Amino acid sequence: MKPINIAILGCGTVGTGVARLLLENADIMRDRVGCDLNLKYVADIDTETDRGIAFAPGVMIPDAARAIADPEVDIVVETIGGEGIAKHVVTANKALLAKHGNAIISAATEKGVDLAYEASVGGCMPIIKTVRESLVGNRISAMTGILNGTCNYILSKITDEGVVFEKALAEAQAKGYAEADPTLDVEGLDAAHKLAILAALAFGMQINFDDVYIEGISRITPMDIEFAAQFGYRIKLLAITKFDGQAVEARVHPTMIPFDNMLSNVNGTLNAISVSGDAVGDILLYGHGAGMMPTASAVVSDIADIARNLSSSGAGRVPVLGFQADKVRAIPVMPMDDIVTNYYFRFDALDRPGVLAAIAGILGKYSISLKYVHQKGRKTNGSVPVVMLTHHAREKDVRQALSEISALDVVAGEPMVVRIEDQNGH
Amino acid sequence: MKPINIAILGCGTVGTGVARLLLENADIMRDRVGCDLNLKYVADIDTETDRGIAFAPGVMIPDAARAIADPEVDIVVETIGGEGIAKHVVTANKALLAKHGNAIISAATEKGVDLAYEASVGGCMPIIKTVRESLVGNRISAMTGILNGTCNYILSKITDEGVVFEKALAEAQAKGYAEADPTLDVEGLDAAHKLAILAALAFGMQINFDDVYIEGISRITPMDIEFAAQFGYRIKLLAITKFDGQAVEARVHPTMIPFDNMLSNVNGTLNAISVSGDAVGDILLYGHGAGMMPTASAVVSDIADIARNLSSSGAGRVPVLGFQADKVRAIPVMPMDDIVTNYYFRFDALDRPGVLAAIAGILGKYSISLKYVHQKGRKTNGSVPVVMLTHHAREKDVRQALSEISALDVVAGEPMVVRIEDQNGH
Repeated sequence: MKPINIAILGCGTVGTGVARLLLENADIMRDRVGCDLNLKYVADIDTETDRGIAFAPGVMIPDAARAIADPEVDIVVETIGGEGIAKHVVTANKALLAKHGNAIISAATEKGVDLAYEASVGGCMPIIKTVRESLVGNRISAMTGILNGTCNYILSKITDEGVVFEKALAEAQAKGYAEADPTLDVEGLDAAHKLAILAALAFGMQINFDDVYIEGISRITPMDIEFAAQFGYRIKLLAITKFDGQAVEARVHPTMIPFDNMLSNVNGTLNAISVSGDAVGDILLYGHGAGMMPTASAVVSDIADIARNLSSSGAGRVPVLGFQADKVRAIPVMPMDDIVTNYYFRFDALDRPGVLAAIAGILGKYSISLKYVHQKGRKTNGSVPVVMLTHHAREKDVRQALSEISALDVVAGEPMVVRIEDQNGH
Repeated sequence: MKPINIAILGCGTVGTGVARLLLENADIMRDRVGCDLNLKYVADIDTETDRGIAFAPGVMIPDAARAIADPEVDIVVETIGGEGIAKHVVTANKALLAKHGNAIISAATEKGVDLAYEASVGGCMPIIKTVRESLVGNRISAMTGILNGTCNYILSKITDEGVVFEKALAEAQAKGYAEADPTLDVEGLDAAHKLAILAALAFGMQINFDDVYIEGISRITPMDIEFAAQFGYRIKLLAITKFDGQAVEARVHPTMIPFDNMLSNVNGTLNAISVSGDAVGDILLYGHGAGMMPTASAVVSDIADIARNLSSSGAGRVPVLGFQADKVRAIPVMPMDDIVTNYYFRFDALDRPGVLAAIAGILGKYSISLKYVHQKGRKTNGSVPVVMLTHHAREKDVRQALSEISALDVVAGEPMVVRIEDQNGH
């Protein structure tokens, strides 16, 4: 199949991430899309800075116009300008879409080109696709989102450490989560840009950024967060849009939400969006709302969509398993014996001296080391539960050890085993 | 644009939900897809039972073969059989896909028809689309899911109420969350069917259900759940698949996960799936994994995808805002003054008798009623924070009341206002 030629205009954070993903994951994308996604140009006035990518000769050019003019370029990433150009466009620019989206959409529709903007809202979360495609059968009544990672980081910091806004902001800046001029983020404008796009998408309305109510987080104090907690609430900067069939609510402001709302557990720089539809009830997406590679992932998904549109007509546009049929492999499933994880054991042990030593001895023999041992208070006669947490162990060793332990006459019944997954893999 | 004709084979829970959604939300789907989705047949041997839907004459028929044979039918929903038929197929049947998916995919690929199965995993959550399309640029390393609502309900019940498995199961059955024969659910088979599909999708491997390790929840006791909590864990039935480049882990078993893992906050019958990719990090989808309308929503999204494939070639397949360009309206944004919600107020009040009465009097004048009032312990001289939570109030009334309250000489500085969103809308 003919390769799809791509030009990235602007090689800042997002552009660099997209270039990296197109080059580093070229193989897996070819397997999924069915043709090569060829990075033909990266246009940036600064062609000198080392972006850690070894571009082929002729790829990095200073002149965006030349990239756009090349008739072989199928998809232009990261710019909207040039209304006369009949190219498919992928953008991550939410401010531009929020303010000039209606005109841009008209131009794209008129030219018959695709305009894709998954990266403009929610970073790597596929909120645009979810609403445009997955919820197509739903009347959407509301969307509620934590759409700005800077604000969420600052509010989490105030909540967890009781520091004042200014201190939390300074830390966010030190960590690179906030710009030197943080106004766009902390005053709620960035979230409002995104909300304007979401509301249009949810309700089939024109983009209307000017009428979004916007209130930032700079006045929130640790005291308010403490009072909120007393009432069972957390304070989040929420972007809220609702539609009753007549008028749309569209507002960004600090909001108290109950602890048992999933959104109240979204902390640090993470983002999440909840969508309410008449068929689905509520669904929620959660993930990184910003950052080089998460944003690049969203841009690249747009590129792949357009590439699939270009290289296929209709059926089979997306292969059944996401990979082209001839690229689907038989990968072996690891035998359960080879799994390595942490374990929880519970034994019903007779309350006699030496029982623990006997159990621990068998575990030791199979190189199973213990992180924690708990034996319930002594009972006169009868059995007591002995509970253990292990460090990493191999399933095969665990099974053999447990079968020996079961055979001990001081252990009653079958041991209870529960595997543990900690945050980072095993 | 020519209507797309659809035949639903089997009018049980899922079939009825799909028919309802196609009929009840026909208008919004036409606005989004760009053509009519015409429900031409619902084939079921039982044509008598009232499903609460007024089908047009000739739609409900007892004979699936006739529906399939009709050359005008473009999309067949909910069956896989009939390998000779060149129709696009939408299915929700995870057991069939898990066991015979490879053969079915080969047949579909050979015939050049689409095979869509969004509803087979995770109910309304767009996990299939997310992996096939949105994460196209990622090397996926792991997926972890709570994929069975019955098990999650039972485990939540044991956790929250300390009841034994058998009692929790009986309640799940009484509420219709578990079948009379609950084996498929509680022994982990249903989750394993789904996991086999997810692993294939994530890693581009053939579907391999036979090698999935499966362990159910019937041995979990309240005691284990209590011990888990002491260690900072919750017990969930997780479906886990990981890929290190050589072999795939695929296992379903009760698993302890830390409290701060989002999955540990997924309770009741809800489902969630976390996906780890090299570009996105972790993303999570959360929503109803079963039920008539959530499942119907997923089936209908598949129908819309195929319809969009059929009625458009390439660009513009999905309209920019998800609605056809000429269906995008200018909907008014509600003025902030008209918003109705609950409010949190904090005033810095001088610690003098009568202050509370003065504030409450002004609020009452504007019909703002209070749910909660908190005044911090008296200070000799100086001001104390007065905190209030309101019942539903109108933003305009709140603003006017606060401006009067600010003007009181016993209130210092600007009042702090935070809006509250409770679980159900306002």
